[in-house]
Amino acid sequence: MSDAHPSTYDGGNAKIVTACVLIIGNEILSGRTQDENLAFLAKGLNEVGVRLREARVILDIAETIVATVNEARHKYDYVFTTGGIGPTHDDITSPCVADAFGVPLIIHPEARRLLESHYPPGALNEARLRMAQVPEGATLLPNPISRAPGFQMGNVFVLPGVPQIMRAIFGELQHRLKGGAKVYSRSVSCALGEGNIAKPLAELQARFADLDIGSYPYFRRADFGTTLVLRGTDRDRLAEATEALKTVIRELGGEPSEGMSED
Amino acid sequence: MSDAHPSTYDGGNAKIVTACVLIIGNEILSGRTQDENLAFLAKGLNEVGVRLREARVILDIAETIVATVNEARHKYDYVFTTGGIGPTHDDITSPCVADAFGVPLIIHPEARRLLESHYPPGALNEARLRMAQVPEGATLLPNPISRAPGFQMGNVFVLPGVPQIMRAIFGELQHRLKGGAKVYSRSVSCALGEGNIAKPLAELQARFADLDIGSYPYFRRADFGTTLVLRGTDRDRLAEATEALKTVIRELGGEPSEGMSED
Repeated sequence: MSDAHPSTYDGGNAKIVTACVLIIGNEILSGRTQDENLAFLAKGLNEVGVRLREARVILDIAETIVATVNEARHKYDYVFTTGGIGPTHDDITSPCVADAFGVPLIIHPEARRLLESHYPPGALNEARLRMAQVPEGATLLPNPISRAPGFQMGNVFVLPGVPQIMRAIFGELQHRLKGGAKVYSRSVSCALGEGNIAKPLAELQARFADLDIGSYPYFRRADFGTTLVLRGTDRDRLAEATEALKTVIRELGGEPSEGMSED
Repeated sequence: MSDAHPSTYDGGNAKIVTACVLIIGNEILSGRTQDENLAFLAKGLNEVGVRLREARVILDIAETIVATVNEARHKYDYVFTTGGIGPTHDDITSPCVADAFGVPLIIHPEARRLLESHYPPGALNEARLRMAQVPEGATLLPNPISRAPGFQMGNVFVLPGVPQIMRAIFGELQHRLKGGAKVYSRSVSCALGEGNIAKPLAELQARFADLDIGSYPYFRRADFGTTLVLRGTDRDRLAEATEALKTVIRELGGEPSEGMSED
């Protein structure tokens, strides 16, 4: 896997490996389709120590895709695109990634072979053959479901938009990613309002500056409260901050309830 | 409403008004929270003739928020942010928008009054009072649910991340937006594979260059096929293209089934 992009280190000297997701498709921006890929990729990247820093949803417009791919691939260690690699006229991600890298679009012989073995004789027409097109120098990403592969070009991973196929391809490549320090999280909920816990919470964040503490109100029927999520690479520090947070909640008359999530 | 940003016109002389959504929050990029606001805003904007061109999901980092707000507000007619306007330390959207506009953050007297009337005596502490902070010159956006308002600064609308509150505030402002030509859509499904319809579909798109035709495969249990979505501002042209598409599908041996969506 490409790791040419310089990584940075955080205060605790934990290696940070970053990623950006580009969701390509008019159907997301028209509201027709609810994206399901971002949250999946966010969790899947976190599992292997890759931190999702940004996501962009962009239209099927060539110059937009080319410019956005180039901006993202220089800024982040890894880029994952979803959408636009099917056989129809609105599928333009592959030629755009070739343009972004300044290389020609070619028919990959192995991708062609995969499609030939998948379709009945005669069904691999010109349109379907477009699914074998990749930028010159790209590596195929196996698709265990419908054979039309994704591909990797430099630090850019080009995936389909259909969630079940995207997940299958990502599952095959996930553990080949070179992650950095893994981020663990713990979460504590209580029936206190955010405004009641805000002050001691800010003090806790200042005391545990190496962790990231987020506060999220919840509303369930007549019930409301706050969920606090603590994230960081050092599990001992996380445990210490979690205990301190529970003490804060009890001092305010609340009852902390922990839902631990280890990834 | 601000309409200072220059609008453009498409080939058919229909006025195009554009928007960008900025989803602010670590919880979306960690995969903890599935965003529900983007699809809602996309549909709601389309209803009033505003076209969502881009969405970005960004971290709770001040310099990132400031830079992204500034880029988006100069590029698009309207910008909608979600998230980061609560009372806790990780809620930094309001000061960032003030920074982006180069104005001080002030306590809005009407927002303060709203909060004072909402909370029991003594409960409006320093943290909650942060929810009355807006950039100088901002206009409040009424919140019919929990009183803490959103605000408009120039062409930027600052909304909360909690979906039910975001929706209520957007509902109050939606019909004050100055939209352009409304985009209508029609959709036709058939049991043909995308690869089978790709060639005549590309020809149809070339013939109806003023419309946007998207192709989306579907998979339902043993069933699969393609949904074609046609979008455009001219309903007569849409109707004409829809009939032409149905003829294409029938010529390929398929059975078109229309699900019309008028917005």
